Amino acid sequence: MSRLVPPHGGKGLVCCLLEGAELEAEKKKAAGLKQIEISSRAKGDLIMMGIGGFSPLNGFMDKANWKSVCEKMLLADGTFWPVPVTLDISKEDAAAIKVGEEVALVRKGEIMATMKVSDIYEMTEADKKWECELVFKGEGPDSQNFWEVAPKDHPGVKMVMAQKEFNVGGTVKVLSQGEFPTKFPNVYMTPAQLRAKMDERGWGKVAALQLRNPMHRSHEYLAKIGVEVCDGVVIHSLVGALKPGDIPAEVRVECIDTLVDKYFVKDFVIQAGYPLDMRYAGPREALLHATFRQNYGINNQLVGRDHAGVGDFYGMFEAQEIFKKIPQPAEDGKRLLCQPMNIDWTFYCKKCDGMASMRTCPHSKEDRVILSGTKLRKMLSEGAEVPDHFGRDEVLVILRKYYEGLTEKVEVKMQRAASGSAM
Amino acid sequence: MSRLVPPHGGKGLVCCLLEGAELEAEKKKAAGLKQIEISSRAKGDLIMMGIGGFSPLNGFMDKANWKSVCEKMLLADGTFWPVPVTLDISKEDAAAIKVGEEVALVRKGEIMATMKVSDIYEMTEADKKWECELVFKGEGPDSQNFWEVAPKDHPGVKMVMAQKEFNVGGTVKVLSQGEFPTKFPNVYMTPAQLRAKMDERGWGKVAALQLRNPMHRSHEYLAKIGVEVCDGVVIHSLVGALKPGDIPAEVRVECIDTLVDKYFVKDFVIQAGYPLDMRYAGPREALLHATFRQNYGINNQLVGRDHAGVGDFYGMFEAQEIFKKIPQPAEDGKRLLCQPMNIDWTFYCKKCDGMASMRTCPHSKEDRVILSGTKLRKMLSEGAEVPDHFGRDEVLVILRKYYEGLTEKVEVKMQRAASGSAM
Repeated sequence: MSRLVPPHGGKGLVCCLLEGAELEAEKKKAAGLKQIEISSRAKGDLIMMGIGGFSPLNGFMDKANWKSVCEKMLLADGTFWPVPVTLDISKEDAAAIKVGEEVALVRKGEIMATMKVSDIYEMTEADKKWECELVFKGEGPDSQNFWEVAPKDHPGVKMVMAQKEFNVGGTVKVLSQGEFPTKFPNVYMTPAQLRAKMDERGWGKVAALQLRNPMHRSHEYLAKIGVEVCDGVVIHSLVGALKPGDIPAEVRVECIDTLVDKYFVKDFVIQAGYPLDMRYAGPREALLHATFRQNYGINNQLVGRDHAGVGDFYGMFEAQEIFKKIPQPAEDGKRLLCQPMNIDWTFYCKKCDGMASMRTCPHSKEDRVILSGTKLRKMLSEGAEVPDHFGRDEVLVILRKYYEGLTEKVEVKMQRAASGSAM
Repeated sequence: MSRLVPPHGGKGLVCCLLEGAELEAEKKKAAGLKQIEISSRAKGDLIMMGIGGFSPLNGFMDKANWKSVCEKMLLADGTFWPVPVTLDISKEDAAAIKVGEEVALVRKGEIMATMKVSDIYEMTEADKKWECELVFKGEGPDSQNFWEVAPKDHPGVKMVMAQKEFNVGGTVKVLSQGEFPTKFPNVYMTPAQLRAKMDERGWGKVAALQLRNPMHRSHEYLAKIGVEVCDGVVIHSLVGALKPGDIPAEVRVECIDTLVDKYFVKDFVIQAGYPLDMRYAGPREALLHATFRQNYGINNQLVGRDHAGVGDFYGMFEAQEIFKKIPQPAEDGKRLLCQPMNIDWTFYCKKCDGMASMRTCPHSKEDRVILSGTKLRKMLSEGAEVPDHFGRDEVLVILRKYYEGLTEKVEVKMQRAASGSAM
C-alpha cells in the first residue's frame, strides 16, 4: 500500500487526458470544432488537468469558481484552491460560441484539448484589476504602490491585464502533453509516474524543492535538509515558460543533473519537472505549488526566501506566513494536506564552517558569503571569479558556458546591426 | 493557549512533589516511618515522578505493570510505557513491611519520598534475566552472546542483575529534588518550567537533542537541523549518573554553554537538563526519552546513531527503527505523541564543504572527518591536535582542560603509590 499523501480534493487523481481509441476519436471530432487559440499559461494549466496535477479540477473555472477562488481561496464546493485557473477568449470568440457547445483549444497549431462550454463571462478592466489585487498584491515595497509598479514590472499582473475580454469555463478533454515528454524525457513526469517511482522506494514523507533558477548551494542546502528529515526529496522544476532573462529549463536541468550526480546520494533524490508557466504570484503561488505537489504525492513543500516572488512585491517570508492563514476546510479531501517546510535565508558562513541560515548562524555579515542573483549573473557573463563556497564548480562551468553563449549571441546581433545585415 | 504537545497519558502533568505546608507535614511524618535506602537510579526516577517528567506514573510499578511494560511496552491500563520503573528492596526490608503501609525512601541520608506500598514481589534471578532480555537485548554483535557479554559489559544489565531480591510497588509523595536545582541552576528544569519558557517563545513544534557526551560538530548538526525545521531545539542533557569513564555533567554543560554562546542563535535554542541516570537500554531508552520529553512539551526527538547505546549491543539505527514497531493505542492520551526525527550517521565532508550525513553525502571515507569517541579522548588527554572540522575550538579547550586535570589526578595517584603515601 502506498504511504504517500492522497491527491488533493478527495477524488483521487482527476486526469482529463484521453488515451488510445478515445483519444483518436476525440481528435477527429476536435478537428471539426470551432478553434480557440490559447495562451502559453493556459496550455500548461491544461496539461496539468490532463495528467491529474490539478486534481480535483477538470476544466477551466466558471464565474462562480473564479470569484470564490479569488476571494476565499476555495472552490465553489468548499475545496481549497489558491489561484484562479481560467481561460480568456476574445469578444469575437465569445460571441461565436454558446454554453453547451464543444470547442477545440489550440496552441500554435496543435489542438491541445476540447472543452464543453459551461459559462462565458465578461472580464472588464475592473474585474481584472480586482483579480490582480486579490491574487498578486503582497506586502513588499512594490505592492505599496501596486497600480503604479505592477502593470509594468509584475509579469503575472501584466499577463492578467493583457487577457482578452471574456473568460470561458467548462470541463476539458486533454489530447496532448505538448512537447514536454519528448523535450524533457528524464525529467518531465506525471503525478502517477512520480508516485510510482516513490512507491517503489517506499517513500511516505517527501519534501519538494521548487526550482525556477539554477541550483546553488542555498538550494542544495534546502534540498538536503529535506533529505535529512524526510524519506527523500523531489527537486521539482518548472519546465514551462518564464519571464525574459530567467535561465531556460534545459540549462537548469543540466545543472541539477550535474549536482545530483556529484553531490547527492541517488537513493534519496528524484529530479522531476512540471509543465506550468510561472505566474509570479508569490505567496498564492507557493500555495499552488503545495496544492499540485500533493497530487504528485509530496507532503512537504520546502519554502525558502521570496518563494515564487518577483521584484519587491512580496515580503521575504510572506510565502511561509500565508500557510498559517489559509482556510482549511474540516473535510479531509477539501483541505490542503501538503505542509510547508519553512527555511530561513541561507548562506555559507565561514565561522560556521558550512551552510547555515539566519536561524542557525549567529555570526556577522562579513562571515557570510551572500550573493544576489543579479550580481552572480554579471560575474558569470563577464567570466569573473565567483566567491568560494557560493556554488559548486561543476555547476558554475555550465552556467558560464550558457552566459558566454548569450554574450556571443548579443555580439553577433550587434555586428549584424552595425553591418546593416537584414538577417 | 499553548501550542505544545500535551503530556503523555492524557492526565496532564502528574506531579508527585509536595510543596509548602503539605511538604512540611509529610517530612515530619516520614521521619517516623520505616526507612528504605534506594539506588541512584531510583532517586532519579523519583524526582521525575515528582516533577511530572514521568507522567502519568505516580509511583513505582507493581508486578502487573512491571510485567506488562517488559512484555508489551504498555502499562496495565493500556498506556504506552517503554521501560520498567521499579524499586528494589532487600529480603529483610520486604519481610519488614506490608501492603498498605507507608515507608520512607532514603538516598544517602536524605528522605526523598514516602511511598504507600501496594505490592511486594520477589525478583528471582530468572525474573531479572527475563526483564534484561526484554529490555536490554538488541541486535548488535554483543547481543548475539548476550549472557556471556552483558553481565560484565552492559551497565544497565549489571544494574538490574545486582538489584535486591524484591521489588516494591506503590504511589509516592516526593519530598525533594535532591541536589539538581542547586547544582545546575541554569540547566535543571521541571517540565512546567521548560513548558513555560517555550510557551513564552510561542513554540509548538520542538525538537530535542539527547546528550550524555560533550557536544561535537555532529551533535551541533543534529541540533541545527532541528532548529531549521522546528520552532526551536532543546539541548536536553542527562545530569544524573553515568558509567565510569563518561564525562561528568558539569563539564558537558560548560561545553554546551560555550557552543550555544558562539554558534547558535539564542532565540531558537534552550539548554535544559533532566535528573535521570543512564539505563543504557538503547532502543527502549530512546523510547523512554521520547516519552518523558513529551511531558517536557517536546514533540520531536532527534535520534542519531546508536542512541543511548553501549558497546556493540544495539544495531547502529535500532533506536530509530523501534519507533515504527511500538504499540500505539488508539486513544490519544495512551499513545506516544513525541515523534522520532531520525538522522543518519553524520560527519564533516571536505568535498561537501560542510556537515553531512550518509543520506546527503555521496563521497568516500577519505573525504570525511570521522573520529571515534575513544580516539578523541586519547588525543585530548595526550594533548594531541584534533583534526580540523571535528569539534569547535572553544569546546576542545574545555575538554583538554578536563582531560589534563584527569591526567594530573592519575599522576598524583601514581606518585603517591610509588612513594607509599597512604592518602
